[in-house]
Amino acid sequence: MTTLSAYSALAERFTRLYRYHHLHAIASWDQATMMPAKGNEARAAALAELQVLIHRTLTEPGLAGQIAAAEDEPLDDMERANLREIRRSWEQANLLPEALVEAKALAGSRCEHAWRTQRPANDWPGFLANFREVVRLSREEAQRLAEATGVRPYDALMDKFEPGMSSAEIERVFEEVKGWLPGLIRQVRERQEGETVLAPAGPFAVERQRALGLDVMKLLGFDFDGGRLDVSVHPFCGGVAEDVRITTRYREDDFVQSLMGIVHETGHARYEQGLPRDWLSQPVGQARSMGIHESQSLSFEMQLGRSPAFLELIAPLVRRHLGEQEAFSSANLARLYTRVQPGFIRVDADELTYPAHIILRFEIERALIEGEIEAEDIPALWDEKMQAYLGVDTRGNFRDGCLQDIHWTDGSFGYFPSYTLGAMYAAQYFAALRRQQPDLDAQIAAGNLAPVFDWLDRHIWSQGSRWETGELVERATGEALNPAYFRAHLERRYLG
Amino acid sequence: MTTLSAYSALAERFTRLYRYHHLHAIASWDQATMMPAKGNEARAAALAELQVLIHRTLTEPGLAGQIAAAEDEPLDDMERANLREIRRSWEQANLLPEALVEAKALAGSRCEHAWRTQRPANDWPGFLANFREVVRLSREEAQRLAEATGVRPYDALMDKFEPGMSSAEIERVFEEVKGWLPGLIRQVRERQEGETVLAPAGPFAVERQRALGLDVMKLLGFDFDGGRLDVSVHPFCGGVAEDVRITTRYREDDFVQSLMGIVHETGHARYEQGLPRDWLSQPVGQARSMGIHESQSLSFEMQLGRSPAFLELIAPLVRRHLGEQEAFSSANLARLYTRVQPGFIRVDADELTYPAHIILRFEIERALIEGEIEAEDIPALWDEKMQAYLGVDTRGNFRDGCLQDIHWTDGSFGYFPSYTLGAMYAAQYFAALRRQQPDLDAQIAAGNLAPVFDWLDRHIWSQGSRWETGELVERATGEALNPAYFRAHLERRYLG
Repeated sequence: MTTLSAYSALAERFTRLYRYHHLHAIASWDQATMMPAKGNEARAAALAELQVLIHRTLTEPGLAGQIAAAEDEPLDDMERANLREIRRSWEQANLLPEALVEAKALAGSRCEHAWRTQRPANDWPGFLANFREVVRLSREEAQRLAEATGVRPYDALMDKFEPGMSSAEIERVFEEVKGWLPGLIRQVRERQEGETVLAPAGPFAVERQRALGLDVMKLLGFDFDGGRLDVSVHPFCGGVAEDVRITTRYREDDFVQSLMGIVHETGHARYEQGLPRDWLSQPVGQARSMGIHESQSLSFEMQLGRSPAFLELIAPLVRRHLGEQEAFSSANLARLYTRVQPGFIRVDADELTYPAHIILRFEIERALIEGEIEAEDIPALWDEKMQAYLGVDTRGNFRDGCLQDIHWTDGSFGYFPSYTLGAMYAAQYFAALRRQQPDLDAQIAAGNLAPVFDWLDRHIWSQGSRWETGELVERATGEALNPAYFRAHLERRYLG
Repeated sequence: MTTLSAYSALAERFTRLYRYHHLHAIASWDQATMMPAKGNEARAAALAELQVLIHRTLTEPGLAGQIAAAEDEPLDDMERANLREIRRSWEQANLLPEALVEAKALAGSRCEHAWRTQRPANDWPGFLANFREVVRLSREEAQRLAEATGVRPYDALMDKFEPGMSSAEIERVFEEVKGWLPGLIRQVRERQEGETVLAPAGPFAVERQRALGLDVMKLLGFDFDGGRLDVSVHPFCGGVAEDVRITTRYREDDFVQSLMGIVHETGHARYEQGLPRDWLSQPVGQARSMGIHESQSLSFEMQLGRSPAFLELIAPLVRRHLGEQEAFSSANLARLYTRVQPGFIRVDADELTYPAHIILRFEIERALIEGEIEAEDIPALWDEKMQAYLGVDTRGNFRDGCLQDIHWTDGSFGYFPSYTLGAMYAAQYFAALRRQQPDLDAQIAAGNLAPVFDWLDRHIWSQGSRWETGELVERATGEALNPAYFRAHLERRYLG
């Protein structure tokens, strides 16, 4: 009988964990897309049981010694990077007691499920009853993580989604954005006042929208032998790298948001489908961070998807599926997709007002987690900030206000900054890509998207978690995160 | 700190197992209905990992003592019955080594997945390459179980599906059936020769068939808040009791089989939906056996579904969804659904020739498991028996021959007898029910299906696994399994 090296034993354990995560991902996808209402209690219990199992598998007493032993073994670069990520997972899990993990999973699942009907019913008090428990448990989680790691409680939660980022840095970046964004929005809105934008005339049958979405996914290189498109209340990209499940939602009176939502989720999906196949079962083979994940969806949605060149490319598809309308000219589509209009809904927001939605959520969730406000204070604060940042009146409209997002329902506090980080990374990638390919827009308009896919594949997808986020971005673009690219992109597109 | 009783500790463990089974059921349903091809390798690995976990949870060393200790604790009747079922699960799991469980799960999953494309391609040699391994591992399983329990290898496999039944008893019953069935088939076919049966004229759009199926499921009391209807290559009833997933398959040129398939699976589904809610997480709250499960699907399909009264009830639904045709008169539908016509496909077989399909499979699989034949001998044996029992020539047609069923692909040997046992139990139930409700057919034709549902709920569904199979049937009908009711039912319906 041969003895496994410590590293091999760890790799085996993480393969097992990968399979547990597979089951969790598929059962969660099913919960959001297929499951009838009465299935939820048993599903929530089964998912919580699985989270306990995952947590237990990550916290067995022998692991500390095994990781230390593996660190002394001869490993190649990928194995070394894998071991770094193994240690990260292990540390994160070992800071939390199992009972807390299970309680949070259960409370989150219950709150999320009830939210699916509470949101359309505008039922804030009903939501609050479940949400208080989610907040209580998330604060406990944050407190425990913060004490052990010496960071602020909110930073400790954020670290799960964007390792290495601090809320102080986020705040610095966001304060800077708050400095120029309102002026830019004002300027662009004045400029767009004289513009004529034709509104597409619906209704647009769901089946046709779906067929159009599938065609656009094909164009974007989504591998349908390794994934699906379905419908859920809140669009997401789930499943596993070998079988990526993206969702959208349809409105018969408006195809514009749903279509760009599909472009967005397809960006997430291609990242997953492009991760290094030989390493999928190990932490190093998985996506780098949520900020990097959003940088892929936003590379697709914002950098590529809303560019005039891409809209020129897909305008014929829109006409093929939805019929001929003047509104479907590529020029009008470009005006539609760059129209700046402060509104209620984050996922429907235009590129320019989007960061304001994120800054608002960041400020509220950080205050909530750090005990400066309570859950019941959220609506008033929401109303105040929406008025201040976007001039929008959300009073009494919880459905399109603080109930609109899924993130808080299951306690995913600390995620929101990833969206705007993602937008900034994406702007930085495309600046690098354009330096290499000065005729990029002509290529895109001609239907050659390969330069985009190749660049993202080479620099991001195929790299998995081989590098820490900072190094990944630097290797890809030649410098660390630099928000100036984001501002320059916005000014070029909206004032250029 | 209080110490749990041994019984409570066992109940907690079995709740955990119930949740693992939940994940297995949903991921398996997804594999058959939703999953794209490239997802299979990872899915198979995840499901096998879960089976290992389940096996490990059932084989921890402390369990033997815990079960023995619980048997000495004061328990009420349900707890006592639950403990009996806990012991049964534990014994079954502990007789097999983990490596064998995992290897069989993997081989089965691979073979089943490949079969999905091999069957339409009529690719017996391709199938055989995977299937040999499934047979090898199933024989090993049978051998180990047989040695430990002192029964024949085949009986040891059958015990998983129909506890307490022996192949000697099956053989006795089947030999008897072989005595009268061929003559009955001949007599009925002669009688039906002069009958005019109008063939429905297709095509029937899948969406309309689906809408009709959903309406029939409503009529049959399927709870759509606790289940779904989808499509798969091989129809089945899966999911969990709280969320029952049934499937069918559609052919545009024939709605007759698909519709009755839905009635069949709805019978399985109502059993699951009717199991005792307070005991669902425990073995005693689960379905009694596969024979009893099939007795529910066949109560729905054969006793109720193909009765003239029921067809009178659903004829207007058929016309509403598929349009007006002379063929959709209730009298013609009754002739269609009782038409006896030996054919290739078990699941499409009429009520009368169906047992011949089962007897053939029973004879082949018993010989295969007990080493009297090899996997490569199956086609010749299949051809010979189809010719002998049904006068049908299957040579070279593997697709509609020995490749037609899913059961062997994952090593579910010993299941097939459950179908004909189920048909016999169902005939016996309806004989008892008719003694109580002499006007049953009039009630059914008038749309009052409550007497059927109430009887099945009271005697079968709500009982879960409280009684051993023999006692369940005896309590329900006043006597042990008596195949005479089956023969009487067939003679009444087909010669009456």
